[in-house]
Amino acid sequence: MLFGLFWVVLAAAVFGTVASKLGVPAVVGQVLAGILIGPSVLNLVRPDEFLLSLAELGAVFLLFMVGLETRFRDLLSVGKEALLVAVLGIVFPLALGFGFGLWQGQENVSALFVGTALVATSVGITAKVLQEMGVLDARFAQVILGAAVIDDILGLTLLAVVSGLGAGESMSAGQVGLILGLSVGFVALVLAVGIPLIRRFQPRLRNLSLSRMFNVAIVVGLGVAALSTVAGLAPIIGAFLAGMVLAEVKDELEFESKVHALESFLAPVFFVVVGLQLDLSVLGNTTVIVAGLILTVLAVIGKVAGGLIGARSMGGRQSLLVGVGMVPRGEVGLIVASLGLAAGVIGKQVYAEVLLMVLLTTVLAPLVLRALAPRPERDVPAA
Amino acid sequence: MLFGLFWVVLAAAVFGTVASKLGVPAVVGQVLAGILIGPSVLNLVRPDEFLLSLAELGAVFLLFMVGLETRFRDLLSVGKEALLVAVLGIVFPLALGFGFGLWQGQENVSALFVGTALVATSVGITAKVLQEMGVLDARFAQVILGAAVIDDILGLTLLAVVSGLGAGESMSAGQVGLILGLSVGFVALVLAVGIPLIRRFQPRLRNLSLSRMFNVAIVVGLGVAALSTVAGLAPIIGAFLAGMVLAEVKDELEFESKVHALESFLAPVFFVVVGLQLDLSVLGNTTVIVAGLILTVLAVIGKVAGGLIGARSMGGRQSLLVGVGMVPRGEVGLIVASLGLAAGVIGKQVYAEVLLMVLLTTVLAPLVLRALAPRPERDVPAA
Repeated sequence: MLFGLFWVVLAAAVFGTVASKLGVPAVVGQVLAGILIGPSVLNLVRPDEFLLSLAELGAVFLLFMVGLETRFRDLLSVGKEALLVAVLGIVFPLALGFGFGLWQGQENVSALFVGTALVATSVGITAKVLQEMGVLDARFAQVILGAAVIDDILGLTLLAVVSGLGAGESMSAGQVGLILGLSVGFVALVLAVGIPLIRRFQPRLRNLSLSRMFNVAIVVGLGVAALSTVAGLAPIIGAFLAGMVLAEVKDELEFESKVHALESFLAPVFFVVVGLQLDLSVLGNTTVIVAGLILTVLAVIGKVAGGLIGARSMGGRQSLLVGVGMVPRGEVGLIVASLGLAAGVIGKQVYAEVLLMVLLTTVLAPLVLRALAPRPERDVPAA
Repeated sequence: MLFGLFWVVLAAAVFGTVASKLGVPAVVGQVLAGILIGPSVLNLVRPDEFLLSLAELGAVFLLFMVGLETRFRDLLSVGKEALLVAVLGIVFPLALGFGFGLWQGQENVSALFVGTALVATSVGITAKVLQEMGVLDARFAQVILGAAVIDDILGLTLLAVVSGLGAGESMSAGQVGLILGLSVGFVALVLAVGIPLIRRFQPRLRNLSLSRMFNVAIVVGLGVAALSTVAGLAPIIGAFLAGMVLAEVKDELEFESKVHALESFLAPVFFVVVGLQLDLSVLGNTTVIVAGLILTVLAVIGKVAGGLIGARSMGGRQSLLVGVGMVPRGEVGLIVASLGLAAGVIGKQVYAEVLLMVLLTTVLAPLVLRALAPRPERDVPAA
C-alpha cells in the first residue's frame, strides 16, 4: 500500500512541479505522470482498490474546496447559461458519438455507450486548472461549475437508461422521471435547506475552536457527498454543494486552510490515478488510433459547440472558454467505458478508442484553457 | 467507500469531543466509537481494505508528526533507559504470556504466540495522548518513543521467529541475526545519513515555496515509511524516523501546519479503525473473559515492570509513566493475534482472550497515563 502511494505522491510532486515550471497546468503533468508510472509504461503502480478510493476522496476534497470558493448567488446569476451549456453539451456529443458508432457499424446499444462516454465531463480537471490560475470567481468559471452540476444530473440519468438498455431492460418515462426528479430534488434540498440552516447556526459555529469547526466541515462534506450517491449523483457533486453551503459562513471562520492542506495532498492523487487507469497498451493498431482521434475531434466539437451556443450571451471568448472547460472527460469517461466493457456491450476495440479520446481531451483541454483564459488581476503565487 | 468513511469521521469527531469534555483522552473515545459503529454493536461499518489502509496511513502521519516534534539528540540522551525499557518490556510480557499459555494447557507454539501478542506495543495510542497533553518533549515521553523504536525492532524479529515456528520452520541464529541486523542497520542508516544530508540541503530547502516543501516532506515521510517495511520494521517507525530527520530543519520552514492538518484528519481514522477491528462478539463465555482479564493483568505487569526497572534511574513517578506508556497493545497486538489465528496456531478461544487484553490495555492505559502525567507548564488548547 505505502509503496504505491509513495510512487503516486512522488510522481505528482515531480511532474506537477516540472509542468508548472514549463507554464503548463500541474494537472497535465500529473495525469501524464500517472500514465508513466502505470501499467502501460514503467508498471511501478497498479490502480488498486485503495488508490482508486483515495483518488475518489481526492476528487471529493477538490470539489469541496472549489465549492468553498463559490457563492451560490453567483452561480444562480448564470443559471440560464449554465443550463443551456449543460443541455447542449449533452445533446451534441451524444448525437455525434451515437452517429459515429453507427457509421462504424456498431450495434445500437454500443453506439449509445460511445455517445454516453462522449457526454461525460470531468469537472475536477477543469476546476483545478481554474483554481491554480486563481480565476474560479470569473463569470465563465461559474458557468462551467453550474453546467457541471446539471451535466452530472443529466449525464448519470442517461447512463442509467443506457446501462438498462445494455442489460436488455428499457425504462419507462416514469422511471426516467423518477431518477431525474430524485437528483434534481437532492440538489434543491441541499441548497434550500442547507444555506438557511448554516446561517442560523453561524453564531454557534463562530464559538467553535478551529479543530472542531474543521471536524464539522469534514463531516458535512463527506456526509453530503455520500448521500448524493444515493440520489444518483456523483459524490463530487455533493461535495461541491456542501462546500457552497459552508461558503456562506467561511469568511468568519478559519477552517479553510486546513481543508486546503488535505486537498493539496489528495487532489494530486486523483490526477495521477486518472493517468494510472489510462493503460495505453490497449491501443493496438492504427485503425483504433484513427477512430480514437476522430472521436476526440467529435468530443471537442460537441462540448465547444455547446459552450459557444449555450453561453453566446457572454460573448465569443467567454463562451469559448466555457466550451473548452467542459471538454475533459477524465475519470467519468473511463467509468462509462469500463461499465460498457464489463457489461459486454462495447468491445475491447471501442473501449480503446474511448480511452484515447479520454486521454487527449483530459490532457489537451487544460493546455488550451490556460492559454485562452484571462490572467486574474491580482498576483497568484505558483502552486 | 464514502459512507464508511463518513461514519468513521463522524464517530471520531463526536466521541473525540465528548471524551475531551469529560477530561478523557480523545483517543479513548475514538476507539470506543469504533467498537460502537463496528460489527459487534451497530454494524454500520466494517473494516474493509480501504479503511484499513487509510488507518495505516493515519498511523504513519501521526508518527511522522510526532517525529517532527522530536529532537534526535534528546532521544539519544535517554538511549540507555530506552534500551533497558524496551528489552525488559519484551522479556517480561513474553515470559508471562508464554507461562500463562502453558498453564492453560496450550501447545508450545500457541503459548509463544500469546507471549508475542503481549510483547506488542502500540506507540500510536500513547504518542497521541502525550501530544494532546503537550508533553511530548518531557523526558519520560522521550524514553517511551526511544523504547518504542527498539521494541519494534525486537518485537518484529520475535514475530518472524515465532511465525516461522508456527509454520514448522525453525530459524538459525544466523537468520535471526540477519533480521535484527537489517532493521538496526536501517534505523542507523536513516539517522546517520539523513540528518547530515538534510542539514546540507537546508539552504536550498529554505528557498522552496511552502507547497513544494510540503511535497518534499510528504515524499520523504512516505518513502522512508515504505522502505522501513522492506527492512522488517513497521511503517510507523520509518515515518517517525523521517519526521525526526526533518525536525532538524523545521524551525526555519513552515510545512508543519500542513502536515498537522493531514494528521488531524487521518489519525482519528486510525483510532476508530482499531475499535472497528475489536469485534467483541467473539467473547463467548466467562472462561474466555476471565482468561482475558488475567492476560490483561499480565500484560500490564510486564510492561509496567519493564518501565519501573528499565527507567529506575529517572525516579519512581517518571519510570511508572514510562511503563504505563508502553501498555497499549492496539493494532499491533491485533496483528499478532490475527496472524496466529490465520496460521491455525492459536484457536478462536485464545484469539478472543487476546482481543479482550488488547481492548482493555488500549482503553485503560491512556486514562491512567493522563491521570498520572504532569501538566505542561504552558497552556495547550483542547483538541
